Amino acid sequence: MGVVVSLGDGKREAPSIKALLDLTAADMGRVNELILSKAGSDVEMIPEIANHLISSGGKRLRPMLTLAAAQMFGYRGDGHVKLATSVEFMHTATLLHDDVVDESDLRRGKKTARIIWGNQASVLVGDFLLGQAFRMMVDVGSLEALDILATAASVIAEGEVWQLAAAKNLETTEDDYLSVIKAKTAALFSAAAEVGPVIAGASKADRGALRSYGVNLGLAFQLIDDALDYGGSSKDLGKNTGDDFREGKVTLPVLLAYRRGSAEDREFWKRAIEQGQSGDAELEKAIGLMTRCGSIADTISRARHFGDIARDALAPLKATPQKHALLDVIDFCISRVV
Amino acid sequence: MGVVVSLGDGKREAPSIKALLDLTAADMGRVNELILSKAGSDVEMIPEIANHLISSGGKRLRPMLTLAAAQMFGYRGDGHVKLATSVEFMHTATLLHDDVVDESDLRRGKKTARIIWGNQASVLVGDFLLGQAFRMMVDVGSLEALDILATAASVIAEGEVWQLAAAKNLETTEDDYLSVIKAKTAALFSAAAEVGPVIAGASKADRGALRSYGVNLGLAFQLIDDALDYGGSSKDLGKNTGDDFREGKVTLPVLLAYRRGSAEDREFWKRAIEQGQSGDAELEKAIGLMTRCGSIADTISRARHFGDIARDALAPLKATPQKHALLDVIDFCISRVV
Repeated sequence: MGVVVSLGDGKREAPSIKALLDLTAADMGRVNELILSKAGSDVEMIPEIANHLISSGGKRLRPMLTLAAAQMFGYRGDGHVKLATSVEFMHTATLLHDDVVDESDLRRGKKTARIIWGNQASVLVGDFLLGQAFRMMVDVGSLEALDILATAASVIAEGEVWQLAAAKNLETTEDDYLSVIKAKTAALFSAAAEVGPVIAGASKADRGALRSYGVNLGLAFQLIDDALDYGGSSKDLGKNTGDDFREGKVTLPVLLAYRRGSAEDREFWKRAIEQGQSGDAELEKAIGLMTRCGSIADTISRARHFGDIARDALAPLKATPQKHALLDVIDFCISRVV
Repeated sequence: MGVVVSLGDGKREAPSIKALLDLTAADMGRVNELILSKAGSDVEMIPEIANHLISSGGKRLRPMLTLAAAQMFGYRGDGHVKLATSVEFMHTATLLHDDVVDESDLRRGKKTARIIWGNQASVLVGDFLLGQAFRMMVDVGSLEALDILATAASVIAEGEVWQLAAAKNLETTEDDYLSVIKAKTAALFSAAAEVGPVIAGASKADRGALRSYGVNLGLAFQLIDDALDYGGSSKDLGKNTGDDFREGKVTLPVLLAYRRGSAEDREFWKRAIEQGQSGDAELEKAIGLMTRCGSIADTISRARHFGDIARDALAPLKATPQKHALLDVIDFCISRVV
């Protein structure tokens, strides 16, 4: 349960990550310095591309998870700053490679690196950042943290290949889809959260709690993202609404609508997703079908389910500001959609 | 000083890596098993692509260097097999990404993975193999070996970006070119050789000897490759002759020919390398210019220079079958060209 402040007028304050931002502000300052220094290179294109992505307005949720999770167990040292930076570099490398794989032109409203510097540079700078991430992890010296993050790197890539192989397959089951997003999104959230207690020398149970929190938060985060791409539960479509639809991505709102649809609906989905008939008129129709069958609302309720598991994962831990901040993150992630 | 066997008829046996193959045969059997198991995945495309590359007839020189270097210092354990497999995976991941970056259609006479499975899968399977490589290294548990290989991963990617940024620049100096190949080729040879003594607990001097051997062998290897692309010192052009020329790569034979050429020659090189006028007629003319100014022969003599340094690097080490085998590798690499 997040910290919900009752205001004088009876309104509840919107869930936010303010507590997390405040608790990690000092450490994040050091993470940001380390990002700049480790993305530095005499080869000018490297810091240019890295800074383009890094300064492009992401929330840096993942490194904040690492920092808060380490603080939570009383970690004293600077290893958490290095691991948090490694996590952000792994994420940035994944984004660079994803944009090449998805042939994306825009990310967060800005031109993608591959559009400005080309696919080639995006692949190679991603590789460089991944290499730098591993060097920082090695520098921290925890083989357990290394194992967790190296395994996440493998699992993320495996999930991406899986998604590529299953692309545009409307027969994908919900279970298969959950396996994919568990690998490509939740694995890094989980690793980011778990390495905190690991370097703090916390108990196996505490590590397990943060790992479970991370993986379930990651699943909720991705499902909400999927719902948001179709406008979430509001009727106001954001500026990036329909990106997944136009790219023919099979996400949960689509998979549920396909399963629940009539024969005629299924033909529509096949034309849209498999054959690329996905213009504005089709998007409007798609959202209509989803609203009617409840697939967006149910994607959000699946996300709430994983949010609930993440919340219970932290239940046994003693009350600390960090614990409250991490619980707020769950509410914040889910509230993006309402 | 390779092991040169005088045959009865007075001929010298051609330099070979037979001694290295024999010494590492048993361990390489285990490396090959580990390759198959660690490139395995429920996502079928992963083993398909990995096996395509791994079975495509490379010599697997790099993992053999790791194995021989570990044996040389009496290593007992199975860490060298895991590190050797990691080295081969790092190499394979680099090839997958290189083929995407260079838009190559053929490698060793076979279609590249990107032609069969697409650029997207090549990028992602490369990432997966790199992740698996790090997991195996972590499993070995040597932070020193991890540091060496993680640093190599960064340096290789940085060298590739550098090469991309400097692509088709005929004003590249020989020093700059050497820096590029030191990063993109020699760094992995060096790391492959150094981790052997590292996990065997050898002295700092011994580690330095193997590191120096590796980096100089790598430089010699790459320069000979560059010369071979223009037919080496023989007049018989191999089936892949001219690949670098057609791709507009500035390698040492080209850089030297450009520097030594007349104003008219330089115009020819600019048209060929920068503007892509690089058909068969141009290739013939290019080889003519190189032969006249001696740039192929001098590339080979630069390679010999680094081969000599590699040989001296091992000089202080006591005579062992592994030492002799590693010395043979130098002769073998250089003999490919004559």
